[in-house]
Amino acid sequence: MVRFFAQPEELAGDSVILTGENAQHAKVLRLKSGEEVLVCDGDGQECLCRVAEFDGKELTLTVCDRRDSVTEAAVRVSVYMAFPKADKLEHVIQKATELGAYEIVAFPSGRCVSRPDEKSLKKKLERWQKIAASAAEQSGRGRIPQVIALGSYAEALSRAAQADKALMFYENEQAVTLKMALSGGGYQTVSLLTGPEGGLEEKEVEQARAAGLQVCTLGKRILRCETAPLCALSAVMYDAGEF
Amino acid sequence: MVRFFAQPEELAGDSVILTGENAQHAKVLRLKSGEEVLVCDGDGQECLCRVAEFDGKELTLTVCDRRDSVTEAAVRVSVYMAFPKADKLEHVIQKATELGAYEIVAFPSGRCVSRPDEKSLKKKLERWQKIAASAAEQSGRGRIPQVIALGSYAEALSRAAQADKALMFYENEQAVTLKMALSGGGYQTVSLLTGPEGGLEEKEVEQARAAGLQVCTLGKRILRCETAPLCALSAVMYDAGEF
Repeated sequence: MVRFFAQPEELAGDSVILTGENAQHAKVLRLKSGEEVLVCDGDGQECLCRVAEFDGKELTLTVCDRRDSVTEAAVRVSVYMAFPKADKLEHVIQKATELGAYEIVAFPSGRCVSRPDEKSLKKKLERWQKIAASAAEQSGRGRIPQVIALGSYAEALSRAAQADKALMFYENEQAVTLKMALSGGGYQTVSLLTGPEGGLEEKEVEQARAAGLQVCTLGKRILRCETAPLCALSAVMYDAGEF
Repeated sequence: MVRFFAQPEELAGDSVILTGENAQHAKVLRLKSGEEVLVCDGDGQECLCRVAEFDGKELTLTVCDRRDSVTEAAVRVSVYMAFPKADKLEHVIQKATELGAYEIVAFPSGRCVSRPDEKSLKKKLERWQKIAASAAEQSGRGRIPQVIALGSYAEALSRAAQADKALMFYENEQAVTLKMALSGGGYQTVSLLTGPEGGLEEKEVEQARAAGLQVCTLGKRILRCETAPLCALSAVMYDAGEF
């Protein structure tokens, strides 16, 4: 079924009017009266609607049913990624959204080569949020993960540490596997923290331990900085019973 | 440690001489006499060597030890992917190699938009194999996964079906999860088969069942054709105890 995202306040009444990009999309899809579509508020609620009228500019929908999104994961996984170079963060935002991440949090660390300044950050965040929205739509999610940029490594640690399972992946860790770290189950929130191209510094790993994160391995092969979070996210979703 | 790949026959004696791209790489790394390096035969065997001499063109190494690669996964996972568009297959080859895939097998299916003709295929296979070699080197693998292109869907099914766990992922399957399909463990070989951009046709899914593949889901979200195999591969490696 075709899926649109709209602001929660637009979904309050018995009918919904979509304009702008949504209407353009409806035009491309040649939506006709009577067809069923889903309109999501981007925060886990969705309305099953029927097309009442479409004049090419305004899509008027009648709300048939309201429900919690059925495609959101029960587990809330936050992906914490040290700022990587160029388009790697965009890649991770797109893929992590598809894979069901709750939010994507970028932060600076010692070996980050790329660290956007405040001026460019605002524009970049807009762009990143659009990538998440587009991936959420395409993958059929009911929620658009928020993309957040933090100002310091310390902030990332203290925020990540609040999850039921707060995990950092480090290539020099060999003893503790992700499976060990997740054993026992029963977790509802998970933070997955990974480093930039050059990896995390040893002192950063110690800081993470001190902040309460569990340091673990993703196996014997060295994963690229854009591969590690997606591998970990896939495994956590699997462990949590998502597929 | 720096890692080179060489032909098995070059690793037969007490010393190894590396030339060409390997020597260029050594030059970039400014390798000096006495330094330890690893030379892999690309098939799971590796030699721990010490630099004896390097004149900028020929790198002469003394073999100190021979061993099975310690970074290869015990489970052999074959990634079967219907030919996708453009650079998506290259992406999957790179990432699947990092994630420890045993081999990557591309095949045609009904909704494939891109299907290389025989003439261009030879060149493409060379290029794909180079991507696998480069990713194997970077991720520290002892084996370069082979990239294989099959001529028909039927061939892909009968080849994939030979694994202990032969799995196909289909977005309309809801009952059987990957976890159910892997339950019981004890598998040594796994085939993971995924469709192209437009998905697999229903009759193709039936053909797969008939060939002995287990059809299962990767969860409630629709994954892009390049995301699905990597998600499944990560989960299988996790299930098999790799991390």
